[in-house]
Amino acid sequence: MDTAEVRAGEELADLPATRDAGLIFIGRIETPWTLRAECPRGGDAEHGPDCRVILDPRWQAALKGLTAGDGLQLLYWMDRARRDLVLQSPRNDGQTLGTFAIRSPCRPNPIASSVVRLMTLDGPCLVVRGLDCVSGTPLLDIKPHRLNPA
Amino acid sequence: MDTAEVRAGEELADLPATRDAGLIFIGRIETPWTLRAECPRGGDAEHGPDCRVILDPRWQAALKGLTAGDGLQLLYWMDRARRDLVLQSPRNDGQTLGTFAIRSPCRPNPIASSVVRLMTLDGPCLVVRGLDCVSGTPLLDIKPHRLNPA
Repeated sequence: MDTAEVRAGEELADLPATRDAGLIFIGRIETPWTLRAECPRGGDAEHGPDCRVILDPRWQAALKGLTAGDGLQLLYWMDRARRDLVLQSPRNDGQTLGTFAIRSPCRPNPIASSVVRLMTLDGPCLVVRGLDCVSGTPLLDIKPHRLNPA
Repeated sequence: MDTAEVRAGEELADLPATRDAGLIFIGRIETPWTLRAECPRGGDAEHGPDCRVILDPRWQAALKGLTAGDGLQLLYWMDRARRDLVLQSPRNDGQTLGTFAIRSPCRPNPIASSVVRLMTLDGPCLVVRGLDCVSGTPLLDIKPHRLNPA
């Protein structure tokens, strides 16, 4: 899906002129995908490719307590996605669903949430499986998440 | 936990002077809790109390396709939480864990993520079970999420 395009049947909202709070990008995600069209629809924490998360050294101490094998929830910012779509047509067939009924990157706050498995941890660099985004995507948060046994 | 207090053993980072992206508050959450200390640690999508989500009418059309009984993932903004803690002592006993190894509201981007069950939907007002935050918390996103059968 081209995240800038507007398709037949889709509806837009007027975005507010101001923002209510500010985000800090805490790192970057490196994946095998450079275009949105190449990305899988949702990641696979068991069989997906290894991806790297490069944390800003400012936050490195905050990794204390994480170990390889852990399940994590990552939040990241879909910075190429338009934010004003309220009705979307994922299949581009004129049929629409509300933005809150699908997990498209296009939403008022384009925050993606994925569950991943931590494979290795080396200083500020994490290798994880389960991501679905283009390489270079800004990271917002890392939280512990209980995964089923591998 | 008082989200402003700093405890023995906790460590702070210097926050960047600028923000990298802006958030839009899309609604408010109403819960039975007015103080952080009253909130449960994590919600219960089956047996938790009914809470109300009041969506800004600007985004109401984006609910199309959601129905009572659905599982949802809500993202919301913990606006009372400090953002500079890298090591935290959840039990206030001098033992610390990294911010990314716990789900405390205090984190560089204080975005909470909870899985809830949609009980009723009436215009821009959703009744859900599974929240854990103080009343008045700003809403950031609603995403579909598959729940186990009730």
